[in-house]
Amino acid sequence: MNKNALRPLIDQARAAGCAALTAPEAQRICDAYGIPTPKQGLAKTAAEAAKLASRFGYPVVLKIVSHDILHKTEAGGVIVGLETATAVRRAFDQLVKSAKRYKKDASIEGVQVQQMLRGGQEVMVGAVSDPSFGKMIAFGMGGVLVEVMKDITFRMAPVGKKEALSMLDAIGAAAVLHGVRGQPGVDRAALADIIWKVSKLVGDFPEIQEVDLNPIFATVKGARAVDVRIVIGDKAKPRPRFSQSEILGAMQRIMNPRSVAVIGASAEDGKIGNSVMKNLINGGYQGAIYPIHPKATEILGRKAYPSVLDVAEDIDVAVFAIPAKFCAAAMDEAGRKKIPGAVMIPSGFAEVGEQGLQDELLGVARKHNVRVMGPNIYGFYYTPQNLCATFCTPYDVKGKVALSSQSGGVGMSIIGFSRSTRMGVSAIVGLGNKSDLDEDDLLTYFEQDDHTQVIAMHCEDLKDGRSFAEVASRVSKRKPIVMLKAGRTALGARAAASHTGALAGNDKIYDDVLRQCGVVRAKSLNDLLQFARGLQVLPDPQGENIVVITGAGGSGVLLSDACVDNGLTLMKMPPDLDAAFRKFIPPFGAAGNPVDITGGEPPTTYANTIRFALDEPRIHSLILGYWHTIITPPMVFAKLCAEVVEEARAKGIDKPVVASLVGDVEVEEASEYLYERGIVACPYTTELPVAVLGAKYRWARAAGLL
Amino acid sequence: MNKNALRPLIDQARAAGCAALTAPEAQRICDAYGIPTPKQGLAKTAAEAAKLASRFGYPVVLKIVSHDILHKTEAGGVIVGLETATAVRRAFDQLVKSAKRYKKDASIEGVQVQQMLRGGQEVMVGAVSDPSFGKMIAFGMGGVLVEVMKDITFRMAPVGKKEALSMLDAIGAAAVLHGVRGQPGVDRAALADIIWKVSKLVGDFPEIQEVDLNPIFATVKGARAVDVRIVIGDKAKPRPRFSQSEILGAMQRIMNPRSVAVIGASAEDGKIGNSVMKNLINGGYQGAIYPIHPKATEILGRKAYPSVLDVAEDIDVAVFAIPAKFCAAAMDEAGRKKIPGAVMIPSGFAEVGEQGLQDELLGVARKHNVRVMGPNIYGFYYTPQNLCATFCTPYDVKGKVALSSQSGGVGMSIIGFSRSTRMGVSAIVGLGNKSDLDEDDLLTYFEQDDHTQVIAMHCEDLKDGRSFAEVASRVSKRKPIVMLKAGRTALGARAAASHTGALAGNDKIYDDVLRQCGVVRAKSLNDLLQFARGLQVLPDPQGENIVVITGAGGSGVLLSDACVDNGLTLMKMPPDLDAAFRKFIPPFGAAGNPVDITGGEPPTTYANTIRFALDEPRIHSLILGYWHTIITPPMVFAKLCAEVVEEARAKGIDKPVVASLVGDVEVEEASEYLYERGIVACPYTTELPVAVLGAKYRWARAAGLL
Repeated sequence: MNKNALRPLIDQARAAGCAALTAPEAQRICDAYGIPTPKQGLAKTAAEAAKLASRFGYPVVLKIVSHDILHKTEAGGVIVGLETATAVRRAFDQLVKSAKRYKKDASIEGVQVQQMLRGGQEVMVGAVSDPSFGKMIAFGMGGVLVEVMKDITFRMAPVGKKEALSMLDAIGAAAVLHGVRGQPGVDRAALADIIWKVSKLVGDFPEIQEVDLNPIFATVKGARAVDVRIVIGDKAKPRPRFSQSEILGAMQRIMNPRSVAVIGASAEDGKIGNSVMKNLINGGYQGAIYPIHPKATEILGRKAYPSVLDVAEDIDVAVFAIPAKFCAAAMDEAGRKKIPGAVMIPSGFAEVGEQGLQDELLGVARKHNVRVMGPNIYGFYYTPQNLCATFCTPYDVKGKVALSSQSGGVGMSIIGFSRSTRMGVSAIVGLGNKSDLDEDDLLTYFEQDDHTQVIAMHCEDLKDGRSFAEVASRVSKRKPIVMLKAGRTALGARAAASHTGALAGNDKIYDDVLRQCGVVRAKSLNDLLQFARGLQVLPDPQGENIVVITGAGGSGVLLSDACVDNGLTLMKMPPDLDAAFRKFIPPFGAAGNPVDITGGEPPTTYANTIRFALDEPRIHSLILGYWHTIITPPMVFAKLCAEVVEEARAKGIDKPVVASLVGDVEVEEASEYLYERGIVACPYTTELPVAVLGAKYRWARAAGLL
Repeated sequence: MNKNALRPLIDQARAAGCAALTAPEAQRICDAYGIPTPKQGLAKTAAEAAKLASRFGYPVVLKIVSHDILHKTEAGGVIVGLETATAVRRAFDQLVKSAKRYKKDASIEGVQVQQMLRGGQEVMVGAVSDPSFGKMIAFGMGGVLVEVMKDITFRMAPVGKKEALSMLDAIGAAAVLHGVRGQPGVDRAALADIIWKVSKLVGDFPEIQEVDLNPIFATVKGARAVDVRIVIGDKAKPRPRFSQSEILGAMQRIMNPRSVAVIGASAEDGKIGNSVMKNLINGGYQGAIYPIHPKATEILGRKAYPSVLDVAEDIDVAVFAIPAKFCAAAMDEAGRKKIPGAVMIPSGFAEVGEQGLQDELLGVARKHNVRVMGPNIYGFYYTPQNLCATFCTPYDVKGKVALSSQSGGVGMSIIGFSRSTRMGVSAIVGLGNKSDLDEDDLLTYFEQDDHTQVIAMHCEDLKDGRSFAEVASRVSKRKPIVMLKAGRTALGARAAASHTGALAGNDKIYDDVLRQCGVVRAKSLNDLLQFARGLQVLPDPQGENIVVITGAGGSGVLLSDACVDNGLTLMKMPPDLDAAFRKFIPPFGAAGNPVDITGGEPPTTYANTIRFALDEPRIHSLILGYWHTIITPPMVFAKLCAEVVEEARAKGIDKPVVASLVGDVEVEEASEYLYERGIVACPYTTELPVAVLGAKYRWARAAGLL
């Protein structure tokens, strides 16, 4: 394809301020990129139109060509199904007349005459420019399926050929493209080729804002774009970015500071600067703490300084606890002191409309190369350093999950939930207004942090989604990332110049990108918290074979429902395993899968079946359905279960085990006992433990473990 | 339509053992019922076929006609798009040849020649015979949408004309039928008419098992069924039913017994018959208790009898706590004693494959008109009578929700969850094998029970779905019914079959029927429990205008997401209300909806905005997003909130108020405090309180309150 030859066309269109290219212009682009279209050409007169039609063969379609008419159909600018030369000539005149009527002074370049295709499957390929993720490529079914059912999938450009092909299977009606009910499938390679070419096109010309090939008629052999719409606009400005090593350098010092200054430290109870001091001290942080206060000489037993500049030693983190209006000046001092990280607790910035104040603050920070967390945050916790750089109450249960939140309220929920469920955490970070530090920076740090094995994030927007996607794709290969993306249902207020644009509800793009990056999306706050709690204790699954062992048939049914809901497949039980399980259970118990050991069984039946399933290499994960009985009370079950799992671990067998405990209140204590021993157990719910296991599997598949 | 004229056709087909009617037979039925089809006729020879084709106009379709060929396409029995007489003659010969090749001795009646329709929207109308719900009428989009996207909706026959029309809007692609993107809509009345006629047809001929009009070509004017398939089979046997007054008579005595006998009562700890006795006594039941034991003279201080026949007074309920094999004999005695209700705790019946034992037991019960709860159950609780007729631990927190479960495990969860969350209940009933008493009977009782205002049911199958639907449709008009239908998914359904021996229900049919009956479907066990807990304290909503008041912007976003997920619409805030709210909140707070009062506000800001929203008649329900701060701690919020709601109630204003509390562990206590005062409040979750409100609205809409 000759990219340079198209440059003048694009530049002229841009210079003329044209949003959408005309059909002949779009045709030239398709030709250059080898995107197949029906035979077509531009006619300046009715006679030319008829001549072209005869050359292409009937029937034909005629479309008005004018830069002044964006919506041809609306302007009566399209006539289909013309079967004779006479009809074509008449249609030509009619189109010109309609165009003039629609827009008196429209400059009309002519009429596009196009061979009319019939048959084949209608699909669409498009491209949009997303403010966060940049160029996105779309594929969907044509007609009703994309219009009404919104059956469409997005990928970040560039899309490789293999990925293009995978998009065909990412839509709801994918089966249609393979062929259903005796209908033949379509030429998948041809469609993938068009997707790839559209991706190439928007890569070559960043001015192209939107592309819309809709419909494309795909047949058993080949695919042709019947209608092509290309919208030109301004190139997106590149975002400033730090390199991964710059990020890591700063984050290392921020998360593991040798010293922390508290700007606005206070001896007075109830002040934020007092809470921060207390939390640092009481949390057990071992580094130096420097209270900064204009007058005090000592605060909470620590020597105080009028300014960070008065501290002789290096300072790694400055926690700000002063009113917004004083922050820029203090930031300048922090910068001059070469402090790499500022934790901006103060509110009163962009979140209350003071964008200017925030920009000023960030300008000062950037000048001195200070990375800024916040503003408008509760601060952060990092348990490996016993660091509570926050005004909230301390939290010290160590664990393997790092959590972050864009909202303070969600952050408080993380703390409350963690405390209530004794969830171990490595870090809890408030990102607030995200003037600077954001999810990418955290991911870059947590990726290499051995204290962190799972990352859970609440986020309302990604300022640089492209950068996030790059980092997340890499990190998710090693550690599960769970994200609660809030504002799911609020569609982006985007000008819908094209069809694809209209379909690119902000959330559909987030959904596809997160999946593409291997990020596990939580659909609710509770899911985020539960996944954070559960994923960190579950070992990685080694395969897809899941077995349910249940003491309650009723739970078995609900657990099976939950498996389907969470994309988990119950192992089809081989006859030898079936026979083996039957040996342990009463004759009226149901083997197969779920293995229904029935309700009246003693502890040994649970123990035997669980032990057998753990020992059996063909079984990869276990879902247990415990039912509270007098014969096997909750804590008896919990203890035997933990013991059997521990035995297996001692032998080097570590499989994900989750459990649903139904029964009286004693099942709560039993569930906690099990969780503390690496078994995700939940009382009064069949769906939650399975959802946690499902999240682990979603991650493991995306990370290529399965 | 001439129903009688069709009788011989149906009878002959049935007598000949033909499952599916031939095209000409189906055509006769369509003609009789006025279901429009393309022009068509049966040709016995190639020449006849060509003659018919010329009469209908080209193109035509030819289809083989043979009772021996069920799957025409598979047999190469259909040729489409024939344009000339020569082509038709050739096709005729080819069809006959293919048929013979497919099935050597196939008896061929001829070839159906049919005018070939083009254009229009493909839809389908059908009927199936469901083992639980009987005749069901289906409507869906044709082609890909129904095949791949399963875009279909079901209604119980008979379907009235208005209901038929509503089915057109119950599918995902409903918009297509109205017309989208410049495409015209279809003739909705013509489609509704076909639906109505199919319903009439299967009503007139119960032998018709399935009808399949697929595709139907619907255009702007009219709709014609291109392919018609009608399958004949045995009529379903009518199910024995009790009248509503018979049910109520027995249920009144069972739920409010003056006396209870315990068959198999025991003085020995750990025995079921001992637990039942203790629970009856310790639960505070005030009626007479008769322990039945072959030898004992007294058990737990109550005079014991060798048989119920030895008790002089009337007995209303007999709780069985003896082995399965002795039950039939004991049932006979209970029957002779004219005890109206037997609570069959024993297991060892159908659930372990002993269907015969269960049938025998039921036979004895039916003979004496004893209604049977179970077998294989934990028993039941009815708090208005302080009645714990169960071997589980007593439960006595009185409330307005009646729960039932088909599974013992789920029943135990109900008890544990209730105790843990202090949920008030009126009844908890185990239905187990449902040999006799089932959901309809419970609904009939709870409908008129003033102690019960919400009914929550776990169920794996409905033995007589038709009867349930009738009762549920009536009861749901007055009281919310929530149902967790287990075995929702294909996997779940399989487990259900192995558990109870019940047939797997088609979940789509359950889903549509439950919605049609106004039953709120819970998608998980936790939802069932939470809805049961929450719905009973929320007053009925008076309108659709919902306002979110939040102290955490982040919660506001998540609460808005949850509203969309739960079918709730945030009120578009009128300018005067917007202005009024702005008076209470800081200048940088966001009015509109959610009303974001911002995080640093004192209790008065919460109080003022909540009070204003309660007093404002245009606002119908409130969702609160509380954020834990030092200025407004959790219990301060809880108390002020309860106070303001109480004030409003004192003025006669009672609106549904739900709250999400994010913060540290103190939000748990605050949530409980609020719940006890009729506000559904949940810690660490934004989605749950909105889901409960959503369930209330789903019910209220179905009940016609909104």
